[in-house]
Amino acid sequence: MLLDTAGMKSLDPKEHPDWEIAQDAESRMKTIYRLGDEMGLEERELLPFGHYMGKIDYRAVLRRLAGKPNGKYVDVTAITPTPLGEGKSTTTIGLVQGLGRRGKRASAAIRQPSGGPTMGVKGSAAGGGRSQCIPLTPFSLGFTGDINAIMNAHNLAMVALTARMQHERNYSDDKLDQLSGLRRLNVDPTRVEMGWVIDYCAQALRNIIIGIDGVNGANDGFMMRSKFDIAVSSELMAILSVAKDLKDLRERMGKVIICYDKFGKPLTTRDFEVDGAMTAWLVDAVNPNLIQTLEGQPVIVHAGPFANIAIGQSSIIADQVGLKLSEYHVTESGFGADIGYEKFWNLKCHYSGLTPDAAVVVTTVRALKCHGGAPVPTPGKKLPQAYAEENVEWVEKGCANLLHHVHIVKQSGVSPVVCINAFVTDTRAEIAKVRELCEAAGARVAVSRHWELGGEGALELADAVMDACNDETVFTPLYDWSMPMRRRIETVATKVYGAEGVDYSFEAKARLEAIEKDTELSRLGLCMVKTHLSLSDDPARKGVPTGWRLKVRDVLTFGGAGFIVPVAGSISLMPGTGSNPSFRRIDVDTETGRVKGLF
Amino acid sequence: MLLDTAGMKSLDPKEHPDWEIAQDAESRMKTIYRLGDEMGLEERELLPFGHYMGKIDYRAVLRRLAGKPNGKYVDVTAITPTPLGEGKSTTTIGLVQGLGRRGKRASAAIRQPSGGPTMGVKGSAAGGGRSQCIPLTPFSLGFTGDINAIMNAHNLAMVALTARMQHERNYSDDKLDQLSGLRRLNVDPTRVEMGWVIDYCAQALRNIIIGIDGVNGANDGFMMRSKFDIAVSSELMAILSVAKDLKDLRERMGKVIICYDKFGKPLTTRDFEVDGAMTAWLVDAVNPNLIQTLEGQPVIVHAGPFANIAIGQSSIIADQVGLKLSEYHVTESGFGADIGYEKFWNLKCHYSGLTPDAAVVVTTVRALKCHGGAPVPTPGKKLPQAYAEENVEWVEKGCANLLHHVHIVKQSGVSPVVCINAFVTDTRAEIAKVRELCEAAGARVAVSRHWELGGEGALELADAVMDACNDETVFTPLYDWSMPMRRRIETVATKVYGAEGVDYSFEAKARLEAIEKDTELSRLGLCMVKTHLSLSDDPARKGVPTGWRLKVRDVLTFGGAGFIVPVAGSISLMPGTGSNPSFRRIDVDTETGRVKGLF
Repeated sequence: MLLDTAGMKSLDPKEHPDWEIAQDAESRMKTIYRLGDEMGLEERELLPFGHYMGKIDYRAVLRRLAGKPNGKYVDVTAITPTPLGEGKSTTTIGLVQGLGRRGKRASAAIRQPSGGPTMGVKGSAAGGGRSQCIPLTPFSLGFTGDINAIMNAHNLAMVALTARMQHERNYSDDKLDQLSGLRRLNVDPTRVEMGWVIDYCAQALRNIIIGIDGVNGANDGFMMRSKFDIAVSSELMAILSVAKDLKDLRERMGKVIICYDKFGKPLTTRDFEVDGAMTAWLVDAVNPNLIQTLEGQPVIVHAGPFANIAIGQSSIIADQVGLKLSEYHVTESGFGADIGYEKFWNLKCHYSGLTPDAAVVVTTVRALKCHGGAPVPTPGKKLPQAYAEENVEWVEKGCANLLHHVHIVKQSGVSPVVCINAFVTDTRAEIAKVRELCEAAGARVAVSRHWELGGEGALELADAVMDACNDETVFTPLYDWSMPMRRRIETVATKVYGAEGVDYSFEAKARLEAIEKDTELSRLGLCMVKTHLSLSDDPARKGVPTGWRLKVRDVLTFGGAGFIVPVAGSISLMPGTGSNPSFRRIDVDTETGRVKGLF
Repeated sequence: MLLDTAGMKSLDPKEHPDWEIAQDAESRMKTIYRLGDEMGLEERELLPFGHYMGKIDYRAVLRRLAGKPNGKYVDVTAITPTPLGEGKSTTTIGLVQGLGRRGKRASAAIRQPSGGPTMGVKGSAAGGGRSQCIPLTPFSLGFTGDINAIMNAHNLAMVALTARMQHERNYSDDKLDQLSGLRRLNVDPTRVEMGWVIDYCAQALRNIIIGIDGVNGANDGFMMRSKFDIAVSSELMAILSVAKDLKDLRERMGKVIICYDKFGKPLTTRDFEVDGAMTAWLVDAVNPNLIQTLEGQPVIVHAGPFANIAIGQSSIIADQVGLKLSEYHVTESGFGADIGYEKFWNLKCHYSGLTPDAAVVVTTVRALKCHGGAPVPTPGKKLPQAYAEENVEWVEKGCANLLHHVHIVKQSGVSPVVCINAFVTDTRAEIAKVRELCEAAGARVAVSRHWELGGEGALELADAVMDACNDETVFTPLYDWSMPMRRRIETVATKVYGAEGVDYSFEAKARLEAIEKDTELSRLGLCMVKTHLSLSDDPARKGVPTGWRLKVRDVLTFGGAGFIVPVAGSISLMPGTGSNPSFRRIDVDTETGRVKGLF
């Protein structure tokens, strides 16, 4: 594959910010038609969105290539990250570029970022340095409209709910039937679980009262407490991630629990007769999106579910398409291996039936030092001085956390490749120590300079991954889905997190007992919610915490996404906007139409 | 121009609903590449969105064709409509198809419909019968994302406002300055004029309380009353409609008034430092959208501002592009000539500098009967029997309203063409009477069967329009923008609506006096708000009401769109969802991906 963006060397990340590197490369990037053609898409299978982005008609591709064997499937996961993140997306893109330099047809799958944080805090989710995907601005700002489609579909359910509550209050049973053939649903206004969504960090919408009567009196809604969450935390986003095809998505769309009735029975989107129309909003969103790496390879972007509340994976459809079109398809899981890889392993692969051939565990020397005792860094603030100085002792101590994640991957039967995402401040001695400890634990290790050098810097990583893919893999689920829910929770807590056991709040216990007795609910999957900043449920505990028990405080049911969500710790589904948000610095060059200051 | 969809006759509208006709024609429609090529777009100027929709890089087109003279400019307006509408969009598409049959290069410009009504009440805004634009489903459901972009840009202003109010409450002046370099804006929470927007009919969000503190206490917003309006009523949609280019849009984006401070001074998007980022959301939306008529001609779809609160016109950019690329460009104005054409004449053409060559006044025999005394029809209910029977007397009486609109057009110096949008129930005698009266008033008259027959049915209309375009036109504004605002209002009320004068509420008078004294505000345009169901401000009065005075109750200031909005009558910016909404019947065929039941 000839790489036209690679033909001219991209700007040096030590001297240029990410957005400058991206903008420079964008002046040489391939058209989407050429990218599609090179990756083997037929003309009708590529739905262009302008000249440099597109959607893939996944159904046409999967039908045409049904008989073709899949490429190798690689998941990128990580050590327990610092609050700064350790570069999983950057490594995903870098690895694909490295595989490209070795002459392999490779593709990446990543999640679509939320518009909320883009406008609130600095940073993109498109990788960094010489390992990014382009075009960067539209990727970060609305893209091909999938999040808006999710938002519209989700809010339609809330329109259906609130209009229904008003009409049921205003009309008698007879009148409801006669006017519209409706039977009373009897919503319990104190048990409305679903809120509205908006793709912003809008703390003022966290707790609201709606339906206050105005000039239209009884026709101004039903007064009750309500809320807005950020769009990417919507269950619909999780559904887009796990749906195997449009048919699967349509079925799941009818099972979303909106609220409970006055007798405690769940009422779904289907009960409100809104599931078909919600699906109508998503017929385009179900097609995965296509852009390119800085070096001209396909990056499939699809779905962006919150990793804290939902599955935190890009879509199954994206991976199915990537595996048919590439020799190596690299996908990414949110947060560390305890969360992201565990859900990849026991949820996403269970739904998709796909099995990985290797898993990359990304670490930085920075994260190892943090787990070894260095002060925890804060986003937006200067990195503590300690990180600029060699400290092999901290690195060695911090490796315990890394090896724990390596062990998690090994439990699944997959070969782990530790990728040291190199920083210019890393010393030889520090890197040597990581290599020594990881190799002793039976993991391949690669030092990767993809941030600094692009694909050329990721050759060692690419070679290690290709080698790992040749290992015999016996992909083994952690637990059987027929196990009672609490036993499954306890298995994850002890075998993956390293807890000594699980404690349940009174409410969580009651809910889980009810779930275990229910034929349908007991067959759902398990999607744990826990902080990503520690292996334990306390974000302050670094390294490998011992002598602790997981506290499950609440249990949510995502009927459409198909999983039970035990919540260990507090989760916010609506971030806030601070006093110095990035939107202050964003503007448009009206001569060129270019967006400035986005990153 | 060869028409591939016309090559095979489309389905008979007497036997098939609109969506069946559209779906059948879609199987033969041109690709967007071919459509763009035929209309003279260069490859780089067409930004495809899938294979059948696109956006036009207006800047590239207007630069390339700067020296080329414009085509003929035709506006489509109407009689005072019944609540069912009299087919302006259908006639706009039909006329373009008729001009095509006469071998002319013609294009249409129409507004993008809102998603709210699509999910709430039956009906599309894509024309009807054999005069529609296709593809119909994406046009009605999100399209290329412009409304979502407007929604995101608008709501970002609300995020900025609400976060700022919280931080100003929580921090001292010193702390605000030190943390983020902010000076206190002192928002008056009782004078927040802007609300949030959502593209639905969600009556439960009309009156809400936001910012209730929860687990995060003082970081959960600032508690105050707020509201959601429907997205298309956003001032930003009006800005998209009147902006001449991205630079103009950028400037207008900073002048939107969000609220007032505690001293009564307006605070704008610029004061909240959010205008640049709001514009960033709109860099794609500023490019007009392209689809096709059933007979394969370009339909430019751009902006969809509410006609009741805002300007009710498709965009100036769409018309600029259409006029450069076509021999005849047909645009449409919302509601009757008293509202839509008046705003086209005195606002849109003032901003654009463009002048029309002819105006079509659409009528139906149904509307004439309604103005002549027949019972007013109700949407969604069966048309009263009276409309199925010949009644020349009602028609003759109703012509007074039609001739009033003809006279409005004549005041502008433009030749009116009355188009009788024919129904199969119209009789010869009824049509002869309309022709007789209109011709006596100096208007051309054409009976058009475009609904039934497509372009072949619109030849008489096309000929009359081409003929009218050869008339000498001295396009004359109704009033000078230097006139005091109240004199302008009175001129519109008496000369256009036929009122005897204007009465102001105490509040409206005070606001207008303040506006007249303000150097900047007094230079803004005038955008009247009045019911479209009567020439008067009382929707029940049909025909040509006399002996009435216009009551102006309120005055709004749209600083970004650039007009003062006197409000005569009640306006709702958030429609409601009834007990039998159309979303109940919408679903997706998961085999084909087709949306069913949308119309």
